[in-house]
Parts: sequence; C-alpha cells; structure tokens
Amino acid sequence: MKLTVAEIADKIGQSFEGDGNVEISKVATLSNADDCSISFLSNPAYLKEVEHCKAAVIIMREQDKDAAKSAAIIVSENPYLSYAQTAQLLYPAHTPEAGVHPSAVIDTNVNIHPGASLAANVVVEAGAVIANGVVIGAGSYVGRDVQIGLETRIEPNVTLLEGVVLGARNIIHSGAVLGADGFGFANDKGSWVKIPQVGRVIVGDDVEIGACTTVDRGAIGDTRIGNGVKLDNHIQVGHNVTIGEHTAMAACVGIAGSANIGAYCNIAGDVGIAGHLSIADGTTLTGKSMVTHSLKKGVYSSGLPVQETGEWRKNAVRLRRLNELFKRVKKLEDNS
Amino acid sequence: MKLTVAEIADKIGQSFEGDGNVEISKVATLSNADDCSISFLSNPAYLKEVEHCKAAVIIMREQDKDAAKSAAIIVSENPYLSYAQTAQLLYPAHTPEAGVHPSAVIDTNVNIHPGASLAANVVVEAGAVIANGVVIGAGSYVGRDVQIGLETRIEPNVTLLEGVVLGARNIIHSGAVLGADGFGFANDKGSWVKIPQVGRVIVGDDVEIGACTTVDRGAIGDTRIGNGVKLDNHIQVGHNVTIGEHTAMAACVGIAGSANIGAYCNIAGDVGIAGHLSIADGTTLTGKSMVTHSLKKGVYSSGLPVQETGEWRKNAVRLRRLNELFKRVKKLEDNS
Amino acid sequence: MKLTVAEIADKIGQSFEGDGNVEISKVATLSNADDCSISFLSNPAYLKEVEHCKAAVIIMREQDKDAAKSAAIIVSENPYLSYAQTAQLLYPAHTPEAGVHPSAVIDTNVNIHPGASLAANVVVEAGAVIANGVVIGAGSYVGRDVQIGLETRIEPNVTLLEGVVLGARNIIHSGAVLGADGFGFANDKGSWVKIPQVGRVIVGDDVEIGACTTVDRGAIGDTRIGNGVKLDNHIQVGHNVTIGEHTAMAACVGIAGSANIGAYCNIAGDVGIAGHLSIADGTTLTGKSMVTHSLKKGVYSSGLPVQETGEWRKNAVRLRRLNELFKRVKKLEDNS
Repeated sequence: MKLTVAEIADKIGQSFEGDGNVEISKVATLSNADDCSISFLSNPAYLKEVEHCKAAVIIMREQDKDAAKSAAIIVSENPYLSYAQTAQLLYPAHTPEAGVHPSAVIDTNVNIHPGASLAANVVVEAGAVIANGVVIGAGSYVGRDVQIGLETRIEPNVTLLEGVVLGARNIIHSGAVLGADGFGFANDKGSWVKIPQVGRVIVGDDVEIGACTTVDRGAIGDTRIGNGVKLDNHIQVGHNVTIGEHTAMAACVGIAGSANIGAYCNIAGDVGIAGHLSIADGTTLTGKSMVTHSLKKGVYSSGLPVQETGEWRKNAVRLRRLNELFKRVKKLEDNS
Repeated sequence: MKLTVAEIADKIGQSFEGDGNVEISKVATLSNADDCSISFLSNPAYLKEVEHCKAAVIIMREQDKDAAKSAAIIVSENPYLSYAQTAQLLYPAHTPEAGVHPSAVIDTNVNIHPGASLAANVVVEAGAVIANGVVIGAGSYVGRDVQIGLETRIEPNVTLLEGVVLGARNIIHSGAVLGADGFGFANDKGSWVKIPQVGRVIVGDDVEIGACTTVDRGAIGDTRIGNGVKLDNHIQVGHNVTIGEHTAMAACVGIAGSANIGAYCNIAGDVGIAGHLSIADGTTLTGKSMVTHSLKKGVYSSGLPVQETGEWRKNAVRLRRLNELFKRVKKLEDNS
Repeated sequence: MKLTVAEIADKIGQSFEGDGNVEISKVATLSNADDCSISFLSNPAYLKEVEHCKAAVIIMREQDKDAAKSAAIIVSENPYLSYAQTAQLLYPAHTPEAGVHPSAVIDTNVNIHPGASLAANVVVEAGAVIANGVVIGAGSYVGRDVQIGLETRIEPNVTLLEGVVLGARNIIHSGAVLGADGFGFANDKGSWVKIPQVGRVIVGDDVEIGACTTVDRGAIGDTRIGNGVKLDNHIQVGHNVTIGEHTAMAACVGIAGSANIGAYCNIAGDVGIAGHLSIADGTTLTGKSMVTHSLKKGVYSSGLPVQETGEWRKNAVRLRRLNELFKRVKKLEDNS
C-alpha cells in the first residue's frame, strides 16, 4: 500500500507541513528510515535521532518539529497513536477470501455467515454461530455452541471450547485456548474429586488475546473479559475471573480463580494474582508483583531487581533473619 | 439432566431434610441460585448469604443448617465434596459417539478399541494403543507407540509424542504437549550439543493435565506422574521429574529436570523448583516460591506481596545492602 | 542401533581401555545400567556409584578411571559431551520418508524440496520455501512466505506465521508459535489502538525452540535469534528482541520487547527481562531473577529461596519497613 503524506495526514485527522505529495510505502524507526518511510518521534529521548533521520516524513509534536530535516512532518499531539493509525493504513490486515476451505470439517447444525472465511482443517462443532467477516485460521477448533462476533480473527491453531462467546473485532492468537476446564477439585481424604466446570467464557468486543494464553471456563458462573482488553502471550486466566474494560496485561501473568480485575489497569509481565480478590480500576502492577489481597487504586510492586550473585546471596540469607534484626535494633534503641 | 433432591441425596450417599421431590436442574452459587438450583455452603464466611439464598436445596453441614430458608437441605460433613459429586450427576460429560471420524489419519498398524471415539483431523501414528472409552478431540496428535488407557479424554489440539503412556480416566486439556524432548545439552567449547532424550512420559490413572502444560520425556529414564495428580495450565515438568500421587499444582509452576516431588503436595501458582532435589510428601508451597534445595515435609514460602511502588522501591534498594546492615547492627551491639 | 565399544570410541574420537568388542545398545545412568549399556561419569559426586555400576562401558575422565569395574571404559576429558555424541549414534532421530502426505493442504505457489517430509494435515501457505531434509510434523502450520532451512525439524502442531525465516538444523517443538503479533498498542484516551506488527522472526542455524514457546514478530524491524541458541519450553520472546549466538534459556523465561540478549549467556528458569535494555555476552542469570536495567558481563540473581512459611511471613512483613530500619540504625550510629 502506498499513500502520499497528504493522504495519510487527512485520513488520520492531523495536519502536515512540507511536501504532501511524497509517496510513503512503509514505516521505519528513526534510525532505519529511508525516503519511502514514515517514522515518528514519541519519546523525547530520541530527539537527537531526528536530525539524521532519512524518513520522508516524521510524525512529531508541535514543540519538537524544528529538529526535523525530513521532507515533511505530520504534527500530532500523540505521535505514537498517529503512528499506529498510519501503520494500519499502510499495512491492512491480509483478508483471505470468504468461504469454507474444502478440508474444513463443519457440523451440519451451524450458522456460518457467507462472508466468513474458514481455512484448511478448521473444525466447527454443532451449534456454532460465526458472523460476517470472521476469519478463522488453519487448524483452529470451534467447539459446540461457540459464538464468534463480526470481523473477529482467529489465528491458526487456536482452540475455542464449548460455549465460548467472542464479541466483534477480536484477535485471538495461535496456541490460545479459551474455555478449558477451570482447576476445581474437592478433596476426599487426600484424593481429588473433579468439580464439573459448567460456566462459559464471555469475551467482549475489540479484545486481543495472545499466543498460548489460556482463559478457563467458569466453574458455575462465567469467566468474563471486558471490551478492549489486551492480553499478551502465556497468560493464565482462571475460572470465574473478570477483567474490566481496556485493561492491558503483559506476558506470563497468572490470575487465580474468581479474581476481579478492574478496568483500565496496567499489569506488567509475570505478575501473579491470587484468587477471590478485587483490584480497583486504574491500578498499575509492575513486573513480577505478587498480589495476595484486594487493592485499591494505585501503583504496586514486589519484584526485586537483580544484584551481582555473590552480594545477592549474602543479602538473601540475611533476609531470612530480618525479623530478628528488627528486634535487635529495637533493643538497642530501648537501651540507648 | 434433572434430578429430585431425594435422588441426589441418595446417589451421593447423604441425608436430606425438607421436600425431597423438588426437581433440580442446575448448580448455582448462594447469591445466584433460583428455585431449580442446588447450592452449597462450604466456607463459613458465606453463612450470611444462606439466609437470602433462593436455591431449592443447599448442601451444608449439620451445624450450619438452621441458617437455611431453602425448601430442602442436604446434610454433609464435606459440602464441597458433595457439591462436586452432585455437579457430576447434573452435568455428565458430553460423550461423543464411538468410532473414528473419516477425516482422521490413522496408521494401519495401531490398536484402537471400537469403543473409542476419535474426532476430526486426529492423527494416530504406528504402534499406538487406544483403549475402550477413550475420547480424542479434533486435531490431536497421537505419536508412535503411545498408549492411552480406559476412558481417558484427550481434548482438541493436544500433542502426545512418541512413547507417551497414559493410564485410565485421565483428562488432558487442549494445547498440552506430553513427550517433547527435555532440555539437555552438553557444552563443547561454548556451543551446545544435543543429548538425545530417549526416555518416555509415564502417567498414572485419574490424572488431569491443564491447557498448554508441557511434560517432557526423560533423558535416559522416564518422567513419571503418579495416580490422581492434578496439574493446572502452563506448567512445565522437566525431564525425569517424578510427581507423587494426588499432588496438585496450580498454574505456571516450573519444575526443572530430575526433581522428585512427593505425594499429596499442594503447590501454588508460579512456584519454581530447581532440578535434582526432593520435596517430601505432604509439602505445601505458597505462590511464587522458589525451591533450590530438598525440603522435608512442611509449609514453605518465598513470595513477596505487593506494596505501594514508591515505598517498595526504597525497601528493595535497601535490601541490596542488608548484609551490611547486619554488620552495622552487630557493631552497635558490641559497642553498647 | 548396536555399536561396539571400539566403534563408539572411534566415532566420537576418544580412546578406550578394556574389551572393545562388547556390543552396546543403549544408554543408562550409572545406577540403572546393565551389560548392554553405556554410562558416563561427569559429576564427581557420583564417583562412588561407578564401583557398583553394571554398564558394559563407562565414559569417564582419565583421573577417575581406576574406580571403574566395567568391562571397558572410554576416556574423555568431557564425559558429558562424549555421552551426548554417543547417544546421538545409538539413537538416530527417526526420519520419516520424504514426500507430502495426501492429507496435507499445500498452496500451489510454494517451493518444497522433494527431499522434505510433510506429515498429515500440515498446511503450507503461498510463498513458503522448504529445503531438503526438512521434516514437518502432523498438524503444523507454515504461513505465507515462511522459509525453512536444510534439515530443520518441525514437530507436530507447531505454528509458523507469515514471514518466519528458519535456518538449518533447527528443532521446533510442539505447541511453539513463531511470528505471532508483538504486544504493541498506542493509548487513545484510555482505549488501546493496535500497532500493526510488520517485522518478521529470523532464526539462525542449529537453534532449538521448546514446546509452547512463543517468539513474536517484530513491530517494525525483525526479532532475531542467533545461531546455536537453545530455548526451553514456555519462553516468551517479545517483539524486536535479539538473542546472541549459543545463549541457552531454561523454561518459563519472559523477555519484553526490544531487549538485546548477548551471546553465550545462561539464563535460568522463570527469569523476567524488561524491554529496551542490553545484557552483555556471557552473562549468567539465576532462577527467577528480574532484570530491569542493562547488565555488563557477570552473574546476577534476585530470586529468594523458600523458608518455612511462619518465619517467612514475619520477615516479609518486616521487609516492607526496611528503609525505616536503615534510618533507625543510622540514628543509633550517629548517637553512639
């Protein structure tokens, strides 16, 4: 896809300065750009790279624009957002032809819109409802009574188990598993007795779910993911978890059963969240945090950054006697 | 499935009080129940919800039963277990018809019981033995010489690699990979030389393995998972690990090679266990614990709960000098 | 495969002592060996097991050899490496016949060498190039314009998305997903706007990628994995990460976007690495470390080993007031 600077600025609703007729065919970082590229300056730390940037056009804020030597600039108060919108224009998602590949195995009792595209070896079970514009990649499995909303994209080798409901414009990445049983067992004198997991997974609109991420079905009620939620890879969402709208989670987060995560939260990589608690809207958790009780809105941490191992081991050993040290200091204070 | 209160009580071997003829069609939480529902009170913290509960029948302990206003109660010393048994009655697993789907690709040299059910696009390699009542979901792969025991359920898109042996009544969830190579390399002047992984994965009876969980084959001997073990999602079981009977592990646990995990252990989410060590029977590990040496029976932790980030950072920085602080306190003590 | 002791010694370039005509058919640990077995002594901690070892031949260092009672020994300065080479001889990888299984779904516009082997239900999209000796397991997906180099093995149910480039002699394990979108979104007044991920994944030669490991495509440029890198299971490699040659990572490591990992690094299980930083060549990170800033060459840790829970909780609570304790000690020192 090629667009002129003027066309891009018009479509993303921003103004431009300089030569609007230059044709742009790709995005690039400030340091790798050439005269067919559009680049952007979002983080002021990279301002000095702007001077030598060979891009045809740079998206940048009004206050930074004097630094640019490019043929043109697009002025935006949010260059990163404008870049996202531009990249969507230049790289439209590959949309395969509508229709069902002859190798797909489709139950007779399904409702598939003729505008949907089902690739090779897709399997669709009875009762499934697949809307217009849905794209399902090769080898993906659509279980009984699954519903997939308008223009949702299921990448290859995804597993959607019985009763999963997906809204519109979702993207579900390869290896993701939605609707597997939650981890529920009752203990009978040491042995574990399975508790049937009879709830579903209900996903809103505009949700993205990463590769190898798992969202378990509810034990009794449903597991629910709100509109606009973005989940990275290798995330575990336990049964009956709820995640509020527009919350984003980085990779490897684990959420135990029945946790309620608020809206507009930012949860960094490898955070662990215990079950049966609530995290308020707008909460931020930094990497490797462990949450064991409910949290009101705020920014929280418990991850420890690395230290040289020899020093670290001495400190880690001492940590095991920290309670004792507090008592010793108290005693010194009492005696001083 | 509908059952009367009297039928349920009879089948789970408990007594009931009140109207035994009420028909029950579903399970519900105390707060969401209606007059077709059975609910349960296990955790006394929810006792106050019992009073307003609209369930037709509640499973509860003798000592709690006065709180109930429901039409009937089922009396049980272990309400959660009785609930599990009831839910199994009301929600029998969907069992597809026996037989092999025409799209499945089956080697000629296999032994598949006519009572097994193999879904669309299943692939079975030479030497596989599949017992009566086995259900294999769409797209799953059964490698050479794999054995699958009576009534084991393989969900869609599971991968069972060469030589995996599964006992009876297992459930293996979607995305799980059993029998991939362990991580074994010898170092040759900086480069890594692969060590062929020639052991197998041997799984007992009544085991459940979660979505996207991986169990690696042994390097020389076998990786072994005991009867009744329950593994949640995203767990990594390294080569030559052994897990004793009825041990349960929550999601995202990682176990390095040749660790021996005892029986009846409870291992919480995101615990990391180093290789070549032993954990005694009946040990409990809380969330995000790190185990680097063998453990006798006990309850262990090393995860740190979150604190507000500003406070946390100050403390985390100080931790890097904790050894020094101990020395300073010692000096103060010596001089006092 | 059977080989005599003399044949093995010759092929791995080491000398032997004792009976060179004994036939060896399998590898075994020192404690499980029988008279058809070859075993090895690498870790001196196991020296006492050598005396009772029933192996036909043991690979060991010159200085340890007097302990052996076996019929023969193979003398090696690096017994573990010699064992790896021996096991490769005794257990050659199963290589299926060349050709494309009739159930595979192959686009007409592809370049597949006749010496490649594609199993049942493999799907190959337009533009793919598959070299001689490549083996692709059942159910794997090869996206548009993917390139797979000489003798690379793709295990069953792997997903290689558009544009992934794999070098020669790689092994990609089941459930791995290469080339899924990186996690990139711009924030628009609270909502997330997707940034198209237009880079690729470029993998060198002799790389092994574990089960359920994910390597995301680059956002603008490419994600790059160097020659000889070994990645265990459940690893997350974010967009635009680079990993230098011969670096090894144990399971469950997470690497955020644009991190640069050096060559010859050893990264233990469950390490978390933040984005946009560099780790020097030859760096070691121990289990559960968290890296939040660039590291020069060294050995680093931040994981905390377990303690009995009662003691641990007291210490963990105190840690939240560690900064205060430092101040109190300072005050005592000032007053002493």
